[in-house]
Amino acid sequence: MKDNQVMLPTLPPWPLVDPIIDRALEEDLAGGDVTTDACVLPETNASATFVARSELVVSGLEVAERVFARVGGGTVTFQSRVPDGTRAKRGDQLLHVAGRARVLLMAERVALNFVQRMSGIATLTQKHVDARPSGSKTRIVDTRKTTPGLRILERYAVRCGGGHNHRDTLGSAVLIKDNHIVAAGGVRAAIERARAHAPHTSKIECEVETFEQLDEALAAGVDVLLLDNMDDAKTADALAKIRAHQGARAQAGASVTVEASGNITLSRVRSLADLGVDVISMGALTHSAPAADVALDLRL
Amino acid sequence: MKDNQVMLPTLPPWPLVDPIIDRALEEDLAGGDVTTDACVLPETNASATFVARSELVVSGLEVAERVFARVGGGTVTFQSRVPDGTRAKRGDQLLHVAGRARVLLMAERVALNFVQRMSGIATLTQKHVDARPSGSKTRIVDTRKTTPGLRILERYAVRCGGGHNHRDTLGSAVLIKDNHIVAAGGVRAAIERARAHAPHTSKIECEVETFEQLDEALAAGVDVLLLDNMDDAKTADALAKIRAHQGARAQAGASVTVEASGNITLSRVRSLADLGVDVISMGALTHSAPAADVALDLRL
Amino acid sequence: MKDNQVMLPTLPPWPLVDPIIDRALEEDLAGGDVTTDACVLPETNASATFVARSELVVSGLEVAERVFARVGGGTVTFQSRVPDGTRAKRGDQLLHVAGRARVLLMAERVALNFVQRMSGIATLTQKHVDARPSGSKTRIVDTRKTTPGLRILERYAVRCGGGHNHRDTLGSAVLIKDNHIVAAGGVRAAIERARAHAPHTSKIECEVETFEQLDEALAAGVDVLLLDNMDDAKTADALAKIRAHQGARAQAGASVTVEASGNITLSRVRSLADLGVDVISMGALTHSAPAADVALDLRL
Amino acid sequence: MKDNQVMLPTLPPWPLVDPIIDRALEEDLAGGDVTTDACVLPETNASATFVARSELVVSGLEVAERVFARVGGGTVTFQSRVPDGTRAKRGDQLLHVAGRARVLLMAERVALNFVQRMSGIATLTQKHVDARPSGSKTRIVDTRKTTPGLRILERYAVRCGGGHNHRDTLGSAVLIKDNHIVAAGGVRAAIERARAHAPHTSKIECEVETFEQLDEALAAGVDVLLLDNMDDAKTADALAKIRAHQGARAQAGASVTVEASGNITLSRVRSLADLGVDVISMGALTHSAPAADVALDLRL
Amino acid sequence: MKDNQVMLPTLPPWPLVDPIIDRALEEDLAGGDVTTDACVLPETNASATFVARSELVVSGLEVAERVFARVGGGTVTFQSRVPDGTRAKRGDQLLHVAGRARVLLMAERVALNFVQRMSGIATLTQKHVDARPSGSKTRIVDTRKTTPGLRILERYAVRCGGGHNHRDTLGSAVLIKDNHIVAAGGVRAAIERARAHAPHTSKIECEVETFEQLDEALAAGVDVLLLDNMDDAKTADALAKIRAHQGARAQAGASVTVEASGNITLSRVRSLADLGVDVISMGALTHSAPAADVALDLRL
Amino acid sequence: MKDNQVMLPTLPPWPLVDPIIDRALEEDLAGGDVTTDACVLPETNASATFVARSELVVSGLEVAERVFARVGGGTVTFQSRVPDGTRAKRGDQLLHVAGRARVLLMAERVALNFVQRMSGIATLTQKHVDARPSGSKTRIVDTRKTTPGLRILERYAVRCGGGHNHRDTLGSAVLIKDNHIVAAGGVRAAIERARAHAPHTSKIECEVETFEQLDEALAAGVDVLLLDNMDDAKTADALAKIRAHQGARAQAGASVTVEASGNITLSRVRSLADLGVDVISMGALTHSAPAADVALDLRL
Repeated sequence: MKDNQVMLPTLPPWPLVDPIIDRALEEDLAGGDVTTDACVLPETNASATFVARSELVVSGLEVAERVFARVGGGTVTFQSRVPDGTRAKRGDQLLHVAGRARVLLMAERVALNFVQRMSGIATLTQKHVDARPSGSKTRIVDTRKTTPGLRILERYAVRCGGGHNHRDTLGSAVLIKDNHIVAAGGVRAAIERARAHAPHTSKIECEVETFEQLDEALAAGVDVLLLDNMDDAKTADALAKIRAHQGARAQAGASVTVEASGNITLSRVRSLADLGVDVISMGALTHSAPAADVALDLRL
Repeated sequence: MKDNQVMLPTLPPWPLVDPIIDRALEEDLAGGDVTTDACVLPETNASATFVARSELVVSGLEVAERVFARVGGGTVTFQSRVPDGTRAKRGDQLLHVAGRARVLLMAERVALNFVQRMSGIATLTQKHVDARPSGSKTRIVDTRKTTPGLRILERYAVRCGGGHNHRDTLGSAVLIKDNHIVAAGGVRAAIERARAHAPHTSKIECEVETFEQLDEALAAGVDVLLLDNMDDAKTADALAKIRAHQGARAQAGASVTVEASGNITLSRVRSLADLGVDVISMGALTHSAPAADVALDLRL
Repeated sequence: MKDNQVMLPTLPPWPLVDPIIDRALEEDLAGGDVTTDACVLPETNASATFVARSELVVSGLEVAERVFARVGGGTVTFQSRVPDGTRAKRGDQLLHVAGRARVLLMAERVALNFVQRMSGIATLTQKHVDARPSGSKTRIVDTRKTTPGLRILERYAVRCGGGHNHRDTLGSAVLIKDNHIVAAGGVRAAIERARAHAPHTSKIECEVETFEQLDEALAAGVDVLLLDNMDDAKTADALAKIRAHQGARAQAGASVTVEASGNITLSRVRSLADLGVDVISMGALTHSAPAADVALDLRL
Repeated sequence: MKDNQVMLPTLPPWPLVDPIIDRALEEDLAGGDVTTDACVLPETNASATFVARSELVVSGLEVAERVFARVGGGTVTFQSRVPDGTRAKRGDQLLHVAGRARVLLMAERVALNFVQRMSGIATLTQKHVDARPSGSKTRIVDTRKTTPGLRILERYAVRCGGGHNHRDTLGSAVLIKDNHIVAAGGVRAAIERARAHAPHTSKIECEVETFEQLDEALAAGVDVLLLDNMDDAKTADALAKIRAHQGARAQAGASVTVEASGNITLSRVRSLADLGVDVISMGALTHSAPAADVALDLRL
Repeated sequence: MKDNQVMLPTLPPWPLVDPIIDRALEEDLAGGDVTTDACVLPETNASATFVARSELVVSGLEVAERVFARVGGGTVTFQSRVPDGTRAKRGDQLLHVAGRARVLLMAERVALNFVQRMSGIATLTQKHVDARPSGSKTRIVDTRKTTPGLRILERYAVRCGGGHNHRDTLGSAVLIKDNHIVAAGGVRAAIERARAHAPHTSKIECEVETFEQLDEALAAGVDVLLLDNMDDAKTADALAKIRAHQGARAQAGASVTVEASGNITLSRVRSLADLGVDVISMGALTHSAPAADVALDLRL
Repeated sequence: MKDNQVMLPTLPPWPLVDPIIDRALEEDLAGGDVTTDACVLPETNASATFVARSELVVSGLEVAERVFARVGGGTVTFQSRVPDGTRAKRGDQLLHVAGRARVLLMAERVALNFVQRMSGIATLTQKHVDARPSGSKTRIVDTRKTTPGLRILERYAVRCGGGHNHRDTLGSAVLIKDNHIVAAGGVRAAIERARAHAPHTSKIECEVETFEQLDEALAAGVDVLLLDNMDDAKTADALAKIRAHQGARAQAGASVTVEASGNITLSRVRSLADLGVDVISMGALTHSAPAADVALDLRL
């Protein structure tokens, strides 16, 4: 395996995704499909093509296939599929499915709802990834601001767009926020307590809003610093302080990771990356991504 | 009850909403909350206030309360809550909750994820409702392009924003689309078959893209016409045709409902309403609404 | 597709039916099958035939097959199956299944429980459908008085028996009952409020017990009238009133649908159909249908 | 506790019943209640009374209360309730509930569906229990022919009607049927294998259709004999054979229990009880009981 | 079928086992597998072998296969499998699986967790079965002290180890314990009440701690006696009493089954069996069995 | 909050624990409780005390209370409870519950099954924690070898015993094992790939079996080293190497965490801690802990 080989993101296994799909089907089909039942003969066959109606980054096509398979079982066949993560242009064909017309019509909307949302997230992520200066190692990262019930799919979609994931859950890693600092009696106490209790596999991340907090966090040996809502100038100052702090120990490789968050815009991605921030995290990737425009063309 | 009294939308009962909340909690908390466990003492109390950070229409506050109640049981108390559907300004306080600091911190993100999404939908809906000329009876209506698993909450959020709901599911009512027309062998056949098979409580809606289809649908006695992707000029022509068709029978009250869909923008809402369209349906209300900006302030 | 072609009813897709089947299996098999485990060798093969023990209309055979498939996976083979909706005579063979004897014995009772209940409903429905005068367009229709947890299967069974379905759920369509009238302050107010709030895809149905209510409902432009517990004479009077109301506008096609409900007996089906009622709805189709007599013959 | 004290049947705890209730609510309310939302103000209060519309044995009132509680939470109050198992006359009031009119209307149908089905089973059971000669110890017993998903409620309803339950599941006790006999190579082998493998807490029951099988089963030490589809004369002969077999050992108390099943009618209950059969089991108690007629009267 | 043929235990069907597997997968994989995703290419294939690392009795291999199948679907192939119940030596290969390396790595831990627990139970059971004198008919039996959520798998594992199962649930059979005796007002009353109410398929078992209770239970016609926490001497006395009681009726075959429970050790199994106890029941088989040592060797 | 204050572990919120409890109840009570129903009057009250029958560390008492509350609702009262994590002696009373005797008897076994398992794990963990030399900072840590379906409870029980948790899931943190190394083409490549892909909140842990691997991992900047199956001598050599590697950079605080795993015994805990290992991880804490001996005494 070559080091520059692209590692495609993988979906969690079907036993974790099927319940999400089945709930969506139940939401839409618990009462059957009265239109299709009336208008379409059971034995009529058809094929369906997913087409991009605007430029987008593809995500969720495997999920869409699975929707058709859940509805139609072995009667559905899958003929081609662009890999998730692909950049598609308006008009590009993404997926071909064939089977009973009734099945395709019953499953269409639910399948599209997944693809449009996931591709919307992948597309928005890619836009921010592309906004970085060329060669940048700064990561574009999601948050826990995901749609209730869809976290595993939305984190996957972020990866499809070239982004990285932040911690998965409140139980995966430590992130000390302002309220934890208040409750623990200060930055140092919070960091020390977290290090004493959290799994040894977790880095200790601490959110700071002031340089006093920043200094205290560095002194306490924080692993990741989250600079909360700092503008570019303040971010630059923070980075200078961090580098100074690390100066003496630079040779030891004990680097502190710096994450910027809050009020991130597309234009700030470049400036933050230029400043040398390691991670830019954005709730908007998952909570405000507009749906990608994908259509399903059906032919008898 | 006065006829102009506002009917507040109601959430479906908790047995239908709790599973959605619980899945969101499990997504986030299955591994516990390592930060809070380390930094916050079990007996520490706190109170939390939800604050609007921008202008928005409120939706989901009852759901947010329920999230805290699911996490903290009887230890959480609810002190005040603005009704869903309220228009809030930046800085307005929306909800006060008090209880164990650990509970508030564990539930915060999930509660906010619901409120931000639902208020985002309500806010976007209200914007389109407000775009209608004063006194207009034209409805702003959602579609089945909802987030998988959240349909009941998103339809409720649309109502909070002053919108109306379209049919709930594929089993609730008939909507004949282009593919059904092809499969049934024409508009007339599709409408007749649908009328013969569908529940007698359902109107028969048919999507038309051409005036030929429109004429055929009117002749077949369609109840609702969906004008698909027609611009204002074409919509005006369609409405003229429909009115002419109805002219002779206007006194009979047998009116055809006209729904416009596809390529709806905020500016077109006014022109379509002025033309006299009855219903404007928009997938974007639910699939592309940006999250409303709501924050939770916590005090020990 | 010819217009007189029979449209076979379709089951909702398996992701909606499997949970029902699996709960039934869990109810019966959570502790294993101690008799079969003791008496039957794992490798013994057998075949099973479902046989009608009395005249009946078949429904649920696909569900029965699925029960065997859930229990036995790929080890079960299905050799022939009469289509749901078929009228069977005593002694007719309905379904042949082959596989491991243990699988067939473990699944037998659950499979039969589905077939007997669903065929019982289909048979009772067909009896009422057949009671109409020849050529009648009057529909025999179910209600929401279904067995908790089995609505989708029971509505399907009604269709297998030649019946039609009423609205699926409380969210699908408007049906104003006596209590809604009281709460809204009268028939007119109730109908107007319903029209103002309900999805534009729903007809407005109103239950009436008196001619005053009937007049008021007609005046308010009701779409469907439910005549509650009226005997034949009163029904005839009601229809006369409705026709008179519609006289002037008959040419406009704006017909009111008339549904009779309450105290329906087999003999009244004919008289009500002769009177010209459009719809006869009966809770008994689903809540009081005796199980059809179906047996499973097993051969090693 | 006196020995002749009536032991009221008990429902399994709510964690086992709530999922059944919640599925029924979801079936009916996933799309909300468009009629109630339109016509009834949120703050309107009402009270509801369940009334028997014909003679019946009550079952399911606790479940009905729970339905209202699931929908309305603490806003619903319960004012009186006749105990399950009570014999009610036409017009008797069974249950009083008070709360928000919206809650009562949303929950009404689901609550009634449970009460009507369960009371129907209790009523049919009681009818057969009453058909026994006075002082009879013969049990009226259900089977595994229960409605899929409702076994725990239906077995409880049988007990409300004065009946007894047969084994709960295939894993609870041994019942050797014709097919097991074939597979095991004879009655004796089947009984011996069952005794060798089944839990020592289970009696060994064997179904017999002929006197040869009966002799063989007695010789093998069967605990319970199921006389399958034998008429009264044949049943009498069978009982004589069994008594003769037991004669020599009567003093030892080692009695064989005799169960009659198949083609049981109300009139045969008396004759079978007079013959001295211990148990009469009937699938019809659960699979063919007509719903009891119960109405809900609502007052604002 | 020969009478001495070994009846292999059977797992309940997959619809009952899959939810257990899927919950285990969700517990481990809801956040994906960050290590495997980073280090292993999607298309890399591998094979895996389960190897016994100590002497053990195999149980759960079918479950392990199912884990891989749930994760990898049709991409996984199963090449050989030792039957559950086999006695394996250190180094024995138990199961060969082949498929995508990612799938094998993601499923490995969950599959092993099942096999190690189930084989641990089977191994401990076999050890006690083997401790009986040769030819002994005394059963080694489990209890309801099973791991929450795993009862069906653990009871199966006991059977794999040559043990028998006790009653499955509180609803399967009667077991009167000390507290029931107190509540019923004595042993005799409890037994009579149980016989009057419990299904006729259930034997009546009663726990006794004293000889007075034992006498009373015998007089009341108990079917199974549980000697609670009696040492060997006391057990011998109890058996003598029971035999004396049965003496007169020995020819009638009306034997009382004797179960010993409490403080059972491996060395006491032999003495209790020698004394002639019918059943030895042990909670430790399921609640304290150490995991069997099984490893998974993976080859690219 | 003082730094040396003990932070009691917290259970995840009830929506995550209730499904586990309810499945256990369903496993045991789906068929009701035939013994209790027969022998105990509904209105009889009782109280129950959980008593330690041997020395143990308490865990799961809150879960036990919840079991009673799920079964009995508001009819159960809780009078006192020792905090989880308490060291109890034989005879210590742990929990007092009062309520209906039927409720206490129905819930008893399930409640005990949780407490015995969880306290067993806590007790075994504490034993290993206590085996460390006084003042030791070496952690005793669990693994992913937990009982399927019970991970959140078992990880909590480990914390009750003074242990720490390892990563929660495969998605929480990186742990590179031998197979990942093979698949990635070596230790260095695996570590670099992991660092490039995994969330920035996760440390990079790598398992090593040889000193070559250890050197390579150190050179690649590993954060946590897992010494797999090394005896004390080899562990000492490994630690010396690691310290030498860190020597130059000791002042930088960039320390590598060292975890020992495989073949850990109680006696090795002390020697490994003396050597200076940071973390000792043991699958046996969860997969082989014998149940703690806890009894429930019931008084009417």
